Amino acid sequence: MKIIGEALNNIPWQEKPEDLKGAPVWRYSENPIIDRNPVENVARIFNSAVMPYEGKFVGVFRGEQVNGVPYIYLGHSEDGIHWNIDKEKIHFVDESGNDFMPKYAYDPRLVKVDDIYYIIWCTDFYGAAIGLARTTDFKTFIRMENPFIPFNRNAVLFPRKINGNFVMLSRPSDSGHTPFGDIFLSESPDMTYWGKHRHVMGKGKEWWECVKIGGGAAPIETDEGWLMFYHGVSGTCNGFVYSIGGAILDINNPSIVKYRCENFLLTPEKWYEERGFVPNVCFPCATLHDAVTGKIAIYYGAADSYVGLAFTQLDEVVSYIKEHSVLTQEDTEIGIR
Amino acid sequence: MKIIGEALNNIPWQEKPEDLKGAPVWRYSENPIIDRNPVENVARIFNSAVMPYEGKFVGVFRGEQVNGVPYIYLGHSEDGIHWNIDKEKIHFVDESGNDFMPKYAYDPRLVKVDDIYYIIWCTDFYGAAIGLARTTDFKTFIRMENPFIPFNRNAVLFPRKINGNFVMLSRPSDSGHTPFGDIFLSESPDMTYWGKHRHVMGKGKEWWECVKIGGGAAPIETDEGWLMFYHGVSGTCNGFVYSIGGAILDINNPSIVKYRCENFLLTPEKWYEERGFVPNVCFPCATLHDAVTGKIAIYYGAADSYVGLAFTQLDEVVSYIKEHSVLTQEDTEIGIR
Repeated sequence: MKIIGEALNNIPWQEKPEDLKGAPVWRYSENPIIDRNPVENVARIFNSAVMPYEGKFVGVFRGEQVNGVPYIYLGHSEDGIHWNIDKEKIHFVDESGNDFMPKYAYDPRLVKVDDIYYIIWCTDFYGAAIGLARTTDFKTFIRMENPFIPFNRNAVLFPRKINGNFVMLSRPSDSGHTPFGDIFLSESPDMTYWGKHRHVMGKGKEWWECVKIGGGAAPIETDEGWLMFYHGVSGTCNGFVYSIGGAILDINNPSIVKYRCENFLLTPEKWYEERGFVPNVCFPCATLHDAVTGKIAIYYGAADSYVGLAFTQLDEVVSYIKEHSVLTQEDTEIGIR
Repeated sequence: MKIIGEALNNIPWQEKPEDLKGAPVWRYSENPIIDRNPVENVARIFNSAVMPYEGKFVGVFRGEQVNGVPYIYLGHSEDGIHWNIDKEKIHFVDESGNDFMPKYAYDPRLVKVDDIYYIIWCTDFYGAAIGLARTTDFKTFIRMENPFIPFNRNAVLFPRKINGNFVMLSRPSDSGHTPFGDIFLSESPDMTYWGKHRHVMGKGKEWWECVKIGGGAAPIETDEGWLMFYHGVSGTCNGFVYSIGGAILDINNPSIVKYRCENFLLTPEKWYEERGFVPNVCFPCATLHDAVTGKIAIYYGAADSYVGLAFTQLDEVVSYIKEHSVLTQEDTEIGIR
């Protein structure tokens, strides 16, 4: 099996522990990689996304200010593990260069398409909706049209156009904590107008994802299809539990799910996942991956308080997803009604 | 004041009663114009839209089948008051001519733009969303791309392009009975891809519309702006109450509200509005209007059981809206965040 993409020989990495049970995804031994109070006036950083940039790494981070309002902060790293987070939040401008700050901004994703870096986040658009901005230099961040009307969260771009169009996953939501939710995709010829919406997959029958699901990391192109790490949510008497799931989407028609793993790949077990502002959350937002070796590093928010890092290997995780794949008709159909 | 549009000298009409109190909107004396069990296997018709067509009238009707599932039925009328409803539901096909029926279809609107008639309704798209189809002959009905991902209801097109784009109002919703809701608009160059979404107006401070609002009839172009009849919802201990409200939107930037009437224009008072499958509903879906005389006929669903007809006169209703206009900042701003 092969990742279709670039080499990344400085990807953060640890070998798989010999005693690993369950799915072939293992945590970095020094987790969390970002602890509480990482920057002045920022209480917690979590649910954040990273990318390779100029031989090093860059990231966009959900920083919960000490007043409780989340914004996005830029960070840099030499090794993808130790991060320097800017003290000032990312300053967004409109197409004319005028200030255009969101009222709040959370759960950012960072995806490069055709040499432009896009930040996608949850923004206030008279209700929770998707915000979108672009940068080429990580100095100027230009906000673009909000792709969808509310309510929506967990949007993530595919890293290349498909059939000539940009493609974005998103998860329609409600105005609150949303006790339901399926993943859809939408196409755009120009990143201004969006359409050809398709249902990708619904919440699962398995209990770990039976309340709702949502897009996580930007899908990874492989010779088996688009490898997608997403989150699935279970309901308990004491609230939601967020786990990481895996699926593989058709390469040319990604509203068609080829494989969907019935088991979670990672679920809250460690203290930094179980304890925090929102207990019991593993929330993937990005991967780094090396096309040469198939190594994959998964960045995930832990308990809305920390950033965690986990690893997997393409062959192993794809084989596991395929071996444990259970599909419904809603998964495999084209997703238009 | 003037309606910008065509003459309609056969518009249904009754003069204003001399004893009318409140807003200058008066009911047809023979309401409801469509009673229960209008067609075999259809229990109720309501929330329906009409248009002039070839010197007579045509309409798309929400018909609640006796199994409780709503579909859209075509109807014809000589006078706009007495309607012949087809026994078979409208048969939709896809762009290739293949059958493409929605699982359900309700609250249709009917709007002509550039000589094409568009039906917009609430459809099942893995959740309540907006369905869209076109016809030129009322024989072949071709479904187009669903403009938005769920959850959404109460979409209505403007009757002409604005600044070169189609413009659609809609009301983001949730998966149930939606205890919130503002009106947004979206633009499209081609009716496939939609964007440049803007917030138009939020639920009102006045109690009659303090739960949610939603688009009603296609806006009427006037020299004062776009005259919009919409619905506003009040919450009571025994459920929602739906009234008809009025606002005037800027002609070139319709996300800007120029005037918004703090009083309802029509609220459930008559037996056919107060009693029925859903008591206490006046739900406007269409108008007929005559540019020569300024006469306006409003078609509205009554208690999810009947079709009602009401009348107003452009000068009077616009003057009333302006005299009782109360605006918030959210109403008057451009509606992008």
